[in-house]
Amino acid sequence: MANDTQLRVAIYGGSGYGGSELLRILLFHPNAEVVTVTANEHAGKAVASVHQNLRGLTDLVFDVAPETLDDIDVVFLAMPHGQAASIVPKLPANISVIDLSGDFRLSDADQIKQYYGRDDADTELQSKFVYGLTETNRKAIRAAKLIANPGCFATATLLALAPMLSSGLAAGKIIVDAKTGSSGSGAKPAANTHHPQRSNSFYAYKPFRHQHLPEIEQHLAEIGRVVSGDIVFMTHSLPVSRGIFASCYFELKEEMTTEMLRNIYTDFYKDAFFVRMVETSPDINWVKGTNFCDISVNAAGRNAVVFSAIDNLVKGAAGQAVQNMNIMHGFPENTGLLLTGSNP
Amino acid sequence: MANDTQLRVAIYGGSGYGGSELLRILLFHPNAEVVTVTANEHAGKAVASVHQNLRGLTDLVFDVAPETLDDIDVVFLAMPHGQAASIVPKLPANISVIDLSGDFRLSDADQIKQYYGRDDADTELQSKFVYGLTETNRKAIRAAKLIANPGCFATATLLALAPMLSSGLAAGKIIVDAKTGSSGSGAKPAANTHHPQRSNSFYAYKPFRHQHLPEIEQHLAEIGRVVSGDIVFMTHSLPVSRGIFASCYFELKEEMTTEMLRNIYTDFYKDAFFVRMVETSPDINWVKGTNFCDISVNAAGRNAVVFSAIDNLVKGAAGQAVQNMNIMHGFPENTGLLLTGSNP
Amino acid sequence: MANDTQLRVAIYGGSGYGGSELLRILLFHPNAEVVTVTANEHAGKAVASVHQNLRGLTDLVFDVAPETLDDIDVVFLAMPHGQAASIVPKLPANISVIDLSGDFRLSDADQIKQYYGRDDADTELQSKFVYGLTETNRKAIRAAKLIANPGCFATATLLALAPMLSSGLAAGKIIVDAKTGSSGSGAKPAANTHHPQRSNSFYAYKPFRHQHLPEIEQHLAEIGRVVSGDIVFMTHSLPVSRGIFASCYFELKEEMTTEMLRNIYTDFYKDAFFVRMVETSPDINWVKGTNFCDISVNAAGRNAVVFSAIDNLVKGAAGQAVQNMNIMHGFPENTGLLLTGSNP
Amino acid sequence: MANDTQLRVAIYGGSGYGGSELLRILLFHPNAEVVTVTANEHAGKAVASVHQNLRGLTDLVFDVAPETLDDIDVVFLAMPHGQAASIVPKLPANISVIDLSGDFRLSDADQIKQYYGRDDADTELQSKFVYGLTETNRKAIRAAKLIANPGCFATATLLALAPMLSSGLAAGKIIVDAKTGSSGSGAKPAANTHHPQRSNSFYAYKPFRHQHLPEIEQHLAEIGRVVSGDIVFMTHSLPVSRGIFASCYFELKEEMTTEMLRNIYTDFYKDAFFVRMVETSPDINWVKGTNFCDISVNAAGRNAVVFSAIDNLVKGAAGQAVQNMNIMHGFPENTGLLLTGSNP
Repeated sequence: MANDTQLRVAIYGGSGYGGSELLRILLFHPNAEVVTVTANEHAGKAVASVHQNLRGLTDLVFDVAPETLDDIDVVFLAMPHGQAASIVPKLPANISVIDLSGDFRLSDADQIKQYYGRDDADTELQSKFVYGLTETNRKAIRAAKLIANPGCFATATLLALAPMLSSGLAAGKIIVDAKTGSSGSGAKPAANTHHPQRSNSFYAYKPFRHQHLPEIEQHLAEIGRVVSGDIVFMTHSLPVSRGIFASCYFELKEEMTTEMLRNIYTDFYKDAFFVRMVETSPDINWVKGTNFCDISVNAAGRNAVVFSAIDNLVKGAAGQAVQNMNIMHGFPENTGLLLTGSNP
Repeated sequence: MANDTQLRVAIYGGSGYGGSELLRILLFHPNAEVVTVTANEHAGKAVASVHQNLRGLTDLVFDVAPETLDDIDVVFLAMPHGQAASIVPKLPANISVIDLSGDFRLSDADQIKQYYGRDDADTELQSKFVYGLTETNRKAIRAAKLIANPGCFATATLLALAPMLSSGLAAGKIIVDAKTGSSGSGAKPAANTHHPQRSNSFYAYKPFRHQHLPEIEQHLAEIGRVVSGDIVFMTHSLPVSRGIFASCYFELKEEMTTEMLRNIYTDFYKDAFFVRMVETSPDINWVKGTNFCDISVNAAGRNAVVFSAIDNLVKGAAGQAVQNMNIMHGFPENTGLLLTGSNP
Repeated sequence: MANDTQLRVAIYGGSGYGGSELLRILLFHPNAEVVTVTANEHAGKAVASVHQNLRGLTDLVFDVAPETLDDIDVVFLAMPHGQAASIVPKLPANISVIDLSGDFRLSDADQIKQYYGRDDADTELQSKFVYGLTETNRKAIRAAKLIANPGCFATATLLALAPMLSSGLAAGKIIVDAKTGSSGSGAKPAANTHHPQRSNSFYAYKPFRHQHLPEIEQHLAEIGRVVSGDIVFMTHSLPVSRGIFASCYFELKEEMTTEMLRNIYTDFYKDAFFVRMVETSPDINWVKGTNFCDISVNAAGRNAVVFSAIDNLVKGAAGQAVQNMNIMHGFPENTGLLLTGSNP
Repeated sequence: MANDTQLRVAIYGGSGYGGSELLRILLFHPNAEVVTVTANEHAGKAVASVHQNLRGLTDLVFDVAPETLDDIDVVFLAMPHGQAASIVPKLPANISVIDLSGDFRLSDADQIKQYYGRDDADTELQSKFVYGLTETNRKAIRAAKLIANPGCFATATLLALAPMLSSGLAAGKIIVDAKTGSSGSGAKPAANTHHPQRSNSFYAYKPFRHQHLPEIEQHLAEIGRVVSGDIVFMTHSLPVSRGIFASCYFELKEEMTTEMLRNIYTDFYKDAFFVRMVETSPDINWVKGTNFCDISVNAAGRNAVVFSAIDNLVKGAAGQAVQNMNIMHGFPENTGLLLTGSNP
């Protein structure tokens, strides 16, 4: 496909933070044109009246769901969990579909019931979706029409663990202590995102039962997980707007130096534009607003810890979704994604 | 009244931030005992399950409104605007009532209608309330049974302006540029206090029509305002949890030095424990959690600016309410109010 | 000049926040190539090791000042106040120079001495610099070789005041209550930017004597200030990283509605891509990271207030500098400056 | 000792955050009087000019070290690491000494050298110090004259682990993922506490080599650690001013429910006023400014996680120091320590 291709794009659910970030990226993507963006409660209102950062940059108006998608090449679904599952069966078969919700990430009906409370999952449809963790799944993504875009916590965790688990050098249990900014809770005000509370707050939530855990386990199995034991996955809330930081602890089968560990990661990610290996520790400050995942590794004897940091709304959602679109349609994967972050 | 007096206190509306701060202070007040605290939606729940800072410090349980107040000495009303107006007429006549809402601050029925949307104000009842700005109204407060506790913005503004206007040395228009932390919006989540937005936000709101404006004008008239011209009062939102900062600009009838101006203020507040004159500028960081109002003055030729800083929930609400209770019942005004703040 | 022109750019002082933002913009500018970037204390180190947001995006290394500038088209000076004054005389005459410091903003030697402590100002050289407030000075900028880029506070203030003062409808004194984020203090740690203090802080500083005041007065005179009286300019510190918000109060010669006032502004800025007129109030949240200046106006009787918000490091520094470069070299003024901001 | 005792107290190193918090507490302690407070660089300046929260509350002036301590009952040492070691040998033998630094926490000379870079440790003197983790060491503290006050991270970690390790029901390796606010870095500005960076930042530091690790290991051995394997201790930086949160992961020898685990903790801390067992997760928001340690436990099969939260400057430093003073001198341990925190 030539570089002057213009994909015609529809965004379902454009009023949330996922939709907001899709717009921020796609409005300036050289090979995409946002044809329609839906938001039932805002239908008829200017997109820029909701996402005021876009004032002066777009004349788009929020739409209800379009009657026909005949001239659409790519649909992004950025709706609350549960809605994509009822929309996807009605979409034309030849359209590229990228779902940012959790609806199609799991293939096991019991887990879908347990973690998302949905008991009518169509497992045949579920199994047609390709898991969109770009760096570990490029080949399948390239051939796919249906993408289940990974969860934000899952992205940070899997990118931190994939090289190690593929190497077969890890042993035993894995502890993942993950922290997220407040935008991970979405655009709707709630008690846990009330500014007077949240701004001086740090706490854990959903111990042992976050819905990204089965997603992580399922994908680790796919990429050749050879470690015995299980994963303890714990989520915490940070008093910042954006960013996820994961601290991943595991044991090595034999003693390694930090340098040896780093070589494994550097080699694994040698073709991954959006993974940057850093010294000592990543910092969410350096990835905020960008599609990068910064990773550092540290070893002491047989103990290892790997840190990863992403922007939950970019690499953890909209950015990775566009990265996948790029791959599905033959563009360089960083097309339209050179968001630089800033200092400070 | 002797120092071993134990006032029996009821708090109506104890689940909001005003109620929270009343509890923080009154539970440790040497001359007060909180007998009952109401919160309809939380009735039956432990106070410490809502105000989790109080865990281990109180066994109080939220109540519905008590059937009788026979054994109560002081009632604090800390409910949303409009509710105190319907409760006060039913309270026993001999009880001290301190209302933290805006219901009884204004005496003019038209203003009450315009700013609070209430068109059934009983102006006779309204006029019985004494305005509880302690530092300018001590004598009336001492004799009062009914107190209208000032608004947070009004407190910061009036304490900054009172010495100057009393002195008769100010001239012309007064500009008040006031800024508040997010707790000023109350304990209920809303779009303007949604953490992802608010944490990097600063904006103005209610230009020319904030409900504290008529309250400020009314009280300035009472304390002998002799300045011609009017007041421009503008409110802004700060991305911190607590604190109000007011920058008050006015003209001097003749040129003064900063030192001359400071002397006027120092003299005016020489007996005011909770007003502290500072150099250059106050900082909300030094008053947060306390009942202090920090003030600085600066003059250049005939231009003057006075800065004041308070904690909106303490000197701007619960702290001043208790300060008024102390005065009404003959205790030193700082009893139970030596909240020190902290560095940092 | 054709659109495929590649300007060869040098940045002096690339390790501070101004330099950081110049790099963020210029590395992706379609008509510019950053040939050299200096930072004496970091000479020899990778740019991306200091500005870690740029890891993976540039291989530039910090340089000491280059021996020759023969092949350079544009020099940006982003050094501490006082250094540009000694560098400019040595630069080749045909190079475009854009100075982000305060060195060449004032033309009066006494004011330079008073506000910047420099008593050797070469007033002839000073007078050759064109003041780079793009929206009011486009014609002069287009013809200029030497640009004094405006201060951040001055930019926010002047854009808020220019339409009104040009209109001749304002009267009397102007009060400007301005607030800035912590990045305005630069990249070097100091007591007033120590996180434990600053994060819960709001205070005023430099009352009546901020160095942007004479800059504002001088440029208002240039654009046809017809108002009598003087300007009171007050600066405050906000507990956010980025953003400036200015509240500008003045009197109208006769009563106007908000709509009438807005029409004046909308007309004045009808060709200004980077000025956006908004309802009620701008918010620094919507301009952070961008080159936009958001403005709202409000009138009540003869009182008016105009609010403006910018990102201090973009429209208040590096972004406006590149906007000026674009104009000087015949590119559309928003070339390379479509930084979108984000929600949240 | 009767309740009307007035201990005469000296504070060495009163200008830092530890000293600041000692003053906030001790100035209002019913059984203590601060006789002298030293700060070499501020000698002769009013304490309230540095700790501006204390304006109006104390007339104390910073002193150099006093010539005689004849009339002093208790000395608090709140100086940078390394200074207490040279002062303690010169102090009168009958004085109670409570050192807030790390100088006397370790008994092993090699570890002192490795973690604090001090190679002249007097191990005899070191061994005379009692470790001041109040809740696990009350009996020894009651009899002690010399207290090594625990580190902030160590306090949060040890209180989270002590009940479990005493019970003998834990197995294998322990992972401690700990996070601290910026005040943990002290009152002196530095790159990692520069507000523009820190306010949107989260990162790890000192992997595998934080100086609180040997302190934790040493004290766990004292309280009857029976778990095999080692401790992985990892520290991270939070973008808040105050608070430590520790997530402690370990394995159970056999499956337990969360309730069973909670019973062990509730029983262990049944007499500990300052430890509060909470549901799901503690939150630093509820302990900030207080001497409380909030703890929650969660079990799933043989996996357990315990969360603890403290204020690093209170229970993690000055508050626990005063708690120890109370015990050493026969006062109820919460005397002067009913700091309530606030909501919000």
